[in-house]
Amino acid sequence: MPKVVTFGELMLRLSPPGYLRFVQTDSFSATFGGSEANVAVTLAQFGLDVSFITKLPSHEIGQLAVNSMRRYGVDTSHILRDGSRIGVFYLEKGASQRGSKVIYDRENSAIALAKADEFNWEEIFMDAEWFHFSGISPALGDNMANLCRIACKKANSLGIPISCDLNYRKKLWTREQAHKVMTELMEYVDVCIANEEDAEDVFGIKPKHGLASAGVIDKESYQEVARMLVDRFGLKLAAITLRRSFSATHNQWSSILYNGKEFIHSKSYDIHLVDRVGGGDSFSGALLYGILEKFELSKALDFATAASCLQQTIEGDFNLISFDEVLSLVEGNTFGRVNR
Amino acid sequence: MPKVVTFGELMLRLSPPGYLRFVQTDSFSATFGGSEANVAVTLAQFGLDVSFITKLPSHEIGQLAVNSMRRYGVDTSHILRDGSRIGVFYLEKGASQRGSKVIYDRENSAIALAKADEFNWEEIFMDAEWFHFSGISPALGDNMANLCRIACKKANSLGIPISCDLNYRKKLWTREQAHKVMTELMEYVDVCIANEEDAEDVFGIKPKHGLASAGVIDKESYQEVARMLVDRFGLKLAAITLRRSFSATHNQWSSILYNGKEFIHSKSYDIHLVDRVGGGDSFSGALLYGILEKFELSKALDFATAASCLQQTIEGDFNLISFDEVLSLVEGNTFGRVNR
Amino acid sequence: MPKVVTFGELMLRLSPPGYLRFVQTDSFSATFGGSEANVAVTLAQFGLDVSFITKLPSHEIGQLAVNSMRRYGVDTSHILRDGSRIGVFYLEKGASQRGSKVIYDRENSAIALAKADEFNWEEIFMDAEWFHFSGISPALGDNMANLCRIACKKANSLGIPISCDLNYRKKLWTREQAHKVMTELMEYVDVCIANEEDAEDVFGIKPKHGLASAGVIDKESYQEVARMLVDRFGLKLAAITLRRSFSATHNQWSSILYNGKEFIHSKSYDIHLVDRVGGGDSFSGALLYGILEKFELSKALDFATAASCLQQTIEGDFNLISFDEVLSLVEGNTFGRVNR
Amino acid sequence: MPKVVTFGELMLRLSPPGYLRFVQTDSFSATFGGSEANVAVTLAQFGLDVSFITKLPSHEIGQLAVNSMRRYGVDTSHILRDGSRIGVFYLEKGASQRGSKVIYDRENSAIALAKADEFNWEEIFMDAEWFHFSGISPALGDNMANLCRIACKKANSLGIPISCDLNYRKKLWTREQAHKVMTELMEYVDVCIANEEDAEDVFGIKPKHGLASAGVIDKESYQEVARMLVDRFGLKLAAITLRRSFSATHNQWSSILYNGKEFIHSKSYDIHLVDRVGGGDSFSGALLYGILEKFELSKALDFATAASCLQQTIEGDFNLISFDEVLSLVEGNTFGRVNR
Amino acid sequence: MPKVVTFGELMLRLSPPGYLRFVQTDSFSATFGGSEANVAVTLAQFGLDVSFITKLPSHEIGQLAVNSMRRYGVDTSHILRDGSRIGVFYLEKGASQRGSKVIYDRENSAIALAKADEFNWEEIFMDAEWFHFSGISPALGDNMANLCRIACKKANSLGIPISCDLNYRKKLWTREQAHKVMTELMEYVDVCIANEEDAEDVFGIKPKHGLASAGVIDKESYQEVARMLVDRFGLKLAAITLRRSFSATHNQWSSILYNGKEFIHSKSYDIHLVDRVGGGDSFSGALLYGILEKFELSKALDFATAASCLQQTIEGDFNLISFDEVLSLVEGNTFGRVNR
Amino acid sequence: MPKVVTFGELMLRLSPPGYLRFVQTDSFSATFGGSEANVAVTLAQFGLDVSFITKLPSHEIGQLAVNSMRRYGVDTSHILRDGSRIGVFYLEKGASQRGSKVIYDRENSAIALAKADEFNWEEIFMDAEWFHFSGISPALGDNMANLCRIACKKANSLGIPISCDLNYRKKLWTREQAHKVMTELMEYVDVCIANEEDAEDVFGIKPKHGLASAGVIDKESYQEVARMLVDRFGLKLAAITLRRSFSATHNQWSSILYNGKEFIHSKSYDIHLVDRVGGGDSFSGALLYGILEKFELSKALDFATAASCLQQTIEGDFNLISFDEVLSLVEGNTFGRVNR
Repeated sequence: MPKVVTFGELMLRLSPPGYLRFVQTDSFSATFGGSEANVAVTLAQFGLDVSFITKLPSHEIGQLAVNSMRRYGVDTSHILRDGSRIGVFYLEKGASQRGSKVIYDRENSAIALAKADEFNWEEIFMDAEWFHFSGISPALGDNMANLCRIACKKANSLGIPISCDLNYRKKLWTREQAHKVMTELMEYVDVCIANEEDAEDVFGIKPKHGLASAGVIDKESYQEVARMLVDRFGLKLAAITLRRSFSATHNQWSSILYNGKEFIHSKSYDIHLVDRVGGGDSFSGALLYGILEKFELSKALDFATAASCLQQTIEGDFNLISFDEVLSLVEGNTFGRVNR
Repeated sequence: MPKVVTFGELMLRLSPPGYLRFVQTDSFSATFGGSEANVAVTLAQFGLDVSFITKLPSHEIGQLAVNSMRRYGVDTSHILRDGSRIGVFYLEKGASQRGSKVIYDRENSAIALAKADEFNWEEIFMDAEWFHFSGISPALGDNMANLCRIACKKANSLGIPISCDLNYRKKLWTREQAHKVMTELMEYVDVCIANEEDAEDVFGIKPKHGLASAGVIDKESYQEVARMLVDRFGLKLAAITLRRSFSATHNQWSSILYNGKEFIHSKSYDIHLVDRVGGGDSFSGALLYGILEKFELSKALDFATAASCLQQTIEGDFNLISFDEVLSLVEGNTFGRVNR
Repeated sequence: MPKVVTFGELMLRLSPPGYLRFVQTDSFSATFGGSEANVAVTLAQFGLDVSFITKLPSHEIGQLAVNSMRRYGVDTSHILRDGSRIGVFYLEKGASQRGSKVIYDRENSAIALAKADEFNWEEIFMDAEWFHFSGISPALGDNMANLCRIACKKANSLGIPISCDLNYRKKLWTREQAHKVMTELMEYVDVCIANEEDAEDVFGIKPKHGLASAGVIDKESYQEVARMLVDRFGLKLAAITLRRSFSATHNQWSSILYNGKEFIHSKSYDIHLVDRVGGGDSFSGALLYGILEKFELSKALDFATAASCLQQTIEGDFNLISFDEVLSLVEGNTFGRVNR
Repeated sequence: MPKVVTFGELMLRLSPPGYLRFVQTDSFSATFGGSEANVAVTLAQFGLDVSFITKLPSHEIGQLAVNSMRRYGVDTSHILRDGSRIGVFYLEKGASQRGSKVIYDRENSAIALAKADEFNWEEIFMDAEWFHFSGISPALGDNMANLCRIACKKANSLGIPISCDLNYRKKLWTREQAHKVMTELMEYVDVCIANEEDAEDVFGIKPKHGLASAGVIDKESYQEVARMLVDRFGLKLAAITLRRSFSATHNQWSSILYNGKEFIHSKSYDIHLVDRVGGGDSFSGALLYGILEKFELSKALDFATAASCLQQTIEGDFNLISFDEVLSLVEGNTFGRVNR
Repeated sequence: MPKVVTFGELMLRLSPPGYLRFVQTDSFSATFGGSEANVAVTLAQFGLDVSFITKLPSHEIGQLAVNSMRRYGVDTSHILRDGSRIGVFYLEKGASQRGSKVIYDRENSAIALAKADEFNWEEIFMDAEWFHFSGISPALGDNMANLCRIACKKANSLGIPISCDLNYRKKLWTREQAHKVMTELMEYVDVCIANEEDAEDVFGIKPKHGLASAGVIDKESYQEVARMLVDRFGLKLAAITLRRSFSATHNQWSSILYNGKEFIHSKSYDIHLVDRVGGGDSFSGALLYGILEKFELSKALDFATAASCLQQTIEGDFNLISFDEVLSLVEGNTFGRVNR
Repeated sequence: MPKVVTFGELMLRLSPPGYLRFVQTDSFSATFGGSEANVAVTLAQFGLDVSFITKLPSHEIGQLAVNSMRRYGVDTSHILRDGSRIGVFYLEKGASQRGSKVIYDRENSAIALAKADEFNWEEIFMDAEWFHFSGISPALGDNMANLCRIACKKANSLGIPISCDLNYRKKLWTREQAHKVMTELMEYVDVCIANEEDAEDVFGIKPKHGLASAGVIDKESYQEVARMLVDRFGLKLAAITLRRSFSATHNQWSSILYNGKEFIHSKSYDIHLVDRVGGGDSFSGALLYGILEKFELSKALDFATAASCLQQTIEGDFNLISFDEVLSLVEGNTFGRVNR
């Protein structure tokens, strides 16, 4: 069973019940999420041995966060427990023309303030066969950018392949900052994952056609984006998820992948969304699974796309879809019949 | 007011709130259901006098089950109260490409272990004008198969017409077992109801075209199925419900009926599903209502189809749609406007 | 900041959770609403100074009602606190072919029994720049019809423009009663708002084509309705909202406006409904906002239509959509993307 | 199985969750209650055949009310279904020094406006062996007072014994009104039940010592009250419940009974209250049960006191305590151990 | 109607439902609180004109916070809206021997980072007749300590009396820091309020006997503390609340007051706690009310003690007890009877 | 960090919310518990390495059960996943004189039907330093009794000390059956734990005085019980928990311990119960902790008694009290003050 290490922030997610707006609520559901944590849960769900690395305060809310991952089988024994706060994000679920809304309160979290020498990467990477992080981590500040650099270098020196989801967040840093830091980190990366906007935001690599903001996706143009990513950074693989938003309730979901030789296109799914947060992360996790389990590339891409389609039909950031369920969708069972 | 008797199992249904998956939940909504119980509630809802026959433990969860039917006006005075457990099923609601999931824990329930001589059918059928059961009951084991046989014979001897919903459940018995037992029971049946797969599963009677698993329904082929059912078993009526699943959220719903002379096709409804469990049962109940109230066949079929369409827009197995609401949909009010 | 006065009833709205039917529930969510109160909240939400006038009992449920408006920034200092009961309405949310259902229990409410001399209109209208009421208020009985007359006269004498939403409710009065009273009140009205059925119900002004009950809307015909309203009552503006119901879950929403010279048509929105109650009120409120803020008419109409589209994607009668959110939709962001 | 008839109002009870105050809540739990309905449920719970008589609107909230009693086995087939509203009461649960609070909204309910000739008492009393009502019913207005008179006369003429719980409600009528009407009705009554204040409020019969308002109960003084009730009205039995309130959370509960010859005192219970509403009604119901089942008087009183003690440890007005549970407490099992 | 100004932080309070521990919860109830905000709500509840001053981010959670106070009638028009975060505290409710637990996440809140020149005290204090703050505010950092100084000076210069609740929080600053800053601020204070530990923590003024930690309170010793406070700082009044904790569920509550001449002792209440947070604040608010309404001192103290007793029987930080309810308790109605 | 192995059943516990009775509920909270699982969680909570051994079905409810323990840090890697059902128990929470109620539905659970050769004890006990089980396990049937024997023998042969909580359940087996099987198993046991009734139920060893059923506990008599247990079975230690039930809401809790030489008595706690289920298990777990961490016996007993006191103030079977919290209570902090 291959062991994977992912590194990043785990946040408390506070959401009003159902479709209530922030100003209407008097309670929040409390779940946890974070791009790299979501990838870890996806991998654990499929049965891999995965260790999530972060830093969380030692108080009970920090413990609740640890338990949220331990519950789903992620190894949390390397999580540092210190510092004063856990990052928080408030999520209001949209519907129809009303988009979902995120309010971040993640500054000064324990992990954002973590120091380079707090993590023992030697120990963390023991027996590891893969390392994954996303562009959110270095966006959390110089400390985190530095930590990503250190982790990448160490993984590199140990011959551990690295994947990175670009995950550009404009509320965390500017395009210029992202460009500078991510360019440097890409040097270590083997597999790069991006959504339909990331490559442009971070590296200025934009599709000729296919303005995502207008809800239209031109697949040809995105082939070009993938090719440029692979070429510019000497990647083994670049994968791009393509979300076409008709409304906050209805999206179309597909992906493409380029391995330096051929372009692979996934099936496309019309999704009646339950909760779209974490869709990209479950794609990343499921793609890594396919790679680690040595699926053929087209199967890996279909597996990742189906897994992330299903993840968007459940509540919360975490992908709690089983291997069998993904396979069934890959094989064409899209009808949602009752299984009894 | 005609009196109807239905016989079968009543189970506790445990569902996570909203779209939560089983592994996410820390509570279950508790409702009750079972094919023949659902038929009974449908008939009581429309104002008929209906008695539901089963066996439930004498403890408080058994009482909660009895109350769940009493509440909606079903006569529960013939329900036996003994034995140690009530059957349970766990239901996870699907969405979009993710299908709903059922986990049964119904073995060794009080009714499944009931003995032939525990029920006094003479008394139960006093004044009854109809008897209904479904293929789930004999599937619960030899005791239940035997009880179905006894009940059918007694009803037959009293001149009480019998309806049966084939309701094949592959988790309860094999196709071979079903074929053997149901063939025998069909001897007593006047009206047979099936969904788009049952006749094939139980009797090997399959539509030429219209592979339900591919989400396509060929109405012509199902005419043939209905005809074969009527012919083989000397039925007065055979009705088939046709569900086309686009996703767990969106289905198309219609039905056909054959009386040995002509084929009748219902309207077809596009349903935005709230809870599809019990759809077929509400069809059966409403069809019986139409028959007992001596509706013309085409009106009876439209009534049954509209009732079961509406039942799938409410939570729970029970059909809590009023006669007036069904009629309004039959008459073409499909727009869901606010009534104020 | 222009000050607006709205006058009408504020009711306790009791709704079963989610899609539960009345007969299934053992709890009600408790919110508040009423046509003119909803208009007031819409205006406060956009930053105007708005005072809502009504009468509520002095007990704690009356206080809860007051607080429900105070919370969103509406001035409640002129609300009378006396009498014995607050009006109640029970709302069951529909889905698919099953329409929403309203049961009123509003007779003998404090405001319906209020006497003409209880309100000091001189004081209420101090500094006011607009007065709004709807056809529901005079429908509540002779007292209220009289109060509307008095308020209109006083506003008129002070040079305060008046808007009225026809809002015909067949459960409150007959078409004949409505015709008589509303004709008289229209004398004072500058801006009249109606839905696709009101003008016919109240004044017998019906579109040549476009039978709303059949779910079809003919825009041309409604131009004629608007023109006839403006002409018959010497209005400055008539606006008509057009709702095409495909089902209780899916509606199309648009509007037209006539200023005596030209017809303006809004964009049309396909809405996946969360809660449609209050849609018309939020249109009225947002239209008044546009008028008071001196938007061009076409922008005012687009603003009002977008605001009321968004209001139907949130729970409750109140419009809790911000100015920026409306603007974003007006500008074409209909895709419901996450804002992060 | 003796058949009992009870007659009165059934109201919707709306309570904020837990200990929330009215002004804090955004939902209400919805249960049903009313003095005579509560007595009916108590009797049905112990296995008697009991029919509850009232009038409720034909809408779905009326149906929910009917179902609330049908669920617990009360015969509701004689309930009239017409009129426009069901009475409502809002209940806020107190704690410690903060008392519970009730807001009534019961005027003009269907039953309060019911006419004398709407009920067919001949049919209602068919096979009945007991009739019960409380002082709340005639307090609802002249119609109801008249109906009580008619029902009592009819019961009397049929030789059916009558019990009455004085149940004085100062928010419904004055002491003078109560005195006049109740004096007249007492002529028909065989068994009178009262709490520690009723006899004084209605008939001016007060204990020499034992000012309930000061939280002190003098049992001797209440013997005198019971004796005066029996003597003045020629009763067979008078029973008085004695509640000593230490706080909204902690009460002491006992009762006395006088049969014209001897005084019987019940045990006294220290109750940690869950919900005290309906305590007196469950006492009445359980006392009637003892009388009808021909318990010795001291056993009947102990049974009634224990049943009503236990009823105050559950949520809602209805007494859902089983015969065995009451017996166990009567026999001295006051320790609340887990039964496993 | 006297106008009062209070100044401090308003935090989001996140509590697991019921008695769930932090590590068990998957949701939080969301209310708001803060010492000075709680005082403001208390005063508004009794009908005074009160303005709360703070700074909150402009996002929707900030708006939810504003609305939480606006809802209860507090003037929020002077609240600054900027900065990036609102302080949060997590509260787990204790029971029996298990104490309640608070986790603060309030660093870097908008108000803690507010600059001296952001508030226009001239405008804020317009028409004000009282200023109140607590020791928590200056504990939030140098900015806030400075702001308190500025506000006090300005109030002083305008002849506005000042009250201060010492409110020592060891998680916010050391005793030494508190001593230094509070000593300086006390120069402006007229009325000082403290609990049984504050005076010792902040000023080293400790009771001779009465070790609160041992659950014993010696009233004589606390007279001495009050006297020393008055003497050392030239106060008009010093009030001390005395809580004796038997357990997290059961406390005894009383207070003493010294005006430089005589000692006044309040009644003592045995409280079955619902939620003890905010007890001291409601005491402060109610005491100010008594002072502003010119109650005799002993009545003011009894009023304050009764109000704060009742506040501890409701959920949340805010005191939502009405004037009449407090009066009723002051007059001796401690029995928690139902008011109906 | 010593490793402990516990072996037994893990059940789904279904409880109505708050104090609702079974017949009132329409939902259940879903938690998990079982005597030996509860012991495992207690030990993990204090930081030990603990592995829980059971068998659970491979379906999602089985997974939910596994996750419920994994979440709190228990090693679940040796849990077998097969079989068809998980045991269920329904729990209704009592209050005051109304006791809590348990309905078991645990027959034929995966673990009850497990075969002797399914578990690899060699592997399970690798590195183990303690083995714990309770009398419930062998009571589940011959298979389980046999499995307990095998496990005990293996532990014995490896020199691993064994503890056993007698835990007699009269619904599972007779006193005679228990006597026979437990006598045999005690041969391997080093530490025996019992409550105030177990020793009598299982071995006929009864206290001379101290009839628990009458709510009275005579500590002297229980010394004798402990002595007889130690003597008869050659134990190292016998511990007895003593619960005095005043009501379902209020218990007294203490314990005694005998090591063959001296009797140790714990402090006694008056507990305001939140949820008493699991009290004995948390005592066992905490006592084992003390033994494994080599506390002095009196400290170990005080630690266990304090831990189990606190466990009864939280919801659910699991002990989620931290080491520091227990220590604080041991040291005398019984006052439940807020920690802030």
